[in-house]
Amino acid sequence: MRVEIWSDIACPWCYIGKARFEQGLAAFAHADEVEVVHRSFELDPDRKRGDTAPVIDMLARKYGRTLDEARAMEEHVAANARAEGLGYRTEGRDHGSTFDIHRLLHLARARGRQDALLNLAYRANFAEERSVFDPEVLVALGVEAGLDEAEVRGVLADHSAYAEEVRADEREAAALGATGVPFFVFDRRYGVSGGQPAEVFTQALEQAWRGRALTPVGPADAPDAAACGPDGACDVPA
Amino acid sequence: MRVEIWSDIACPWCYIGKARFEQGLAAFAHADEVEVVHRSFELDPDRKRGDTAPVIDMLARKYGRTLDEARAMEEHVAANARAEGLGYRTEGRDHGSTFDIHRLLHLARARGRQDALLNLAYRANFAEERSVFDPEVLVALGVEAGLDEAEVRGVLADHSAYAEEVRADEREAAALGATGVPFFVFDRRYGVSGGQPAEVFTQALEQAWRGRALTPVGPADAPDAAACGPDGACDVPA
Repeated sequence: MRVEIWSDIACPWCYIGKARFEQGLAAFAHADEVEVVHRSFELDPDRKRGDTAPVIDMLARKYGRTLDEARAMEEHVAANARAEGLGYRTEGRDHGSTFDIHRLLHLARARGRQDALLNLAYRANFAEERSVFDPEVLVALGVEAGLDEAEVRGVLADHSAYAEEVRADEREAAALGATGVPFFVFDRRYGVSGGQPAEVFTQALEQAWRGRALTPVGPADAPDAAACGPDGACDVPA
Repeated sequence: MRVEIWSDIACPWCYIGKARFEQGLAAFAHADEVEVVHRSFELDPDRKRGDTAPVIDMLARKYGRTLDEARAMEEHVAANARAEGLGYRTEGRDHGSTFDIHRLLHLARARGRQDALLNLAYRANFAEERSVFDPEVLVALGVEAGLDEAEVRGVLADHSAYAEEVRADEREAAALGATGVPFFVFDRRYGVSGGQPAEVFTQALEQAWRGRALTPVGPADAPDAAACGPDGACDVPA
């Protein structure tokens, strides 16, 4: 079974939702037959590379609140994160373009290091307040995740590298009806929106597992025509 | 959308079915949004590495036919292949364990070269009668497909490399109800068994495309709780 998770490194509920999903997955009987793929979604796709601002300021402006009210909103999210055992600081974090991080996450996927890089990037952004908008921090995270430094630098320097993969993920999220993230899709059949409690993810996994039977397409009178069987025998249709 | 194709390099209908699927895909309006993944299935999983025999002999023994009758069976398959524009020779081909080829196809997938390697392996086996059971031929095919020679040799020398990935594919095929190959699965929702005509694949693609809507799982009263929207705003559940 395959679970795809659309998320953005700048999204606190994605950080929390990933931990809740993993708890839900651990409680699922067939967890070892589940493949997890992380897909790209930018909360702020129009933001330019290098244009960063403190998160608290951004929240206050977006919601029309005072800085103290914005801090209280962050504290509420932080309490949810800490309840899942996740570190979360609320002062020095910046908001910015996550496009380059998504490109690197695609490189990491091709190298089998996607989950490692995503965990490191979340931790850097939310728990350590290292700026994930600083290319040198991204290089360090890539190397920590097991990627080749020269390759990471190459992808960061070439703005077209994995750009189409990021945009394809975003188009696919729209086609699947995602209106926000985190957005979880189970075998392209069931969807969970938001950082729901762990039990919801276990339920979705169980539902998707039960719903795995395939609907056959093709001529009903010759379903196994032109096939080779597990005994090596190849049927030859008349 | 995602199409998974279970096949074996030793399976002539997989070779033919891949060409027919690709014709069907070319006629599908959303072809550029289709991801194809090749999955492992061994026709003869008990066969030992290095234990090869001429295909004609194997067919005659398996079906209890004379060598001439076995040759006629092969000629029938060859005619189907040639009708798809595929080369097919019927004399010198061997039968053997395809486990190492499947392991290499998993390496190639990790390196983004899976389809290239699969095409080269089919051509070598059916059109050129180069032995895909000879490790040096596999090295040559891997390099032709764009893989690193040292890495290919490393995988071939380490019999455990990607072995679990091959077995996981085979378990998954069984769980999905595959009784032979080629076996095509569309978004884990629709299945096509056998090297069907191109139109059947187009039909399956269209059916899967229409059936993409997700079933939501989770509390109906708070579907978007704990999510961040595309405007960057993060909802905070009460």
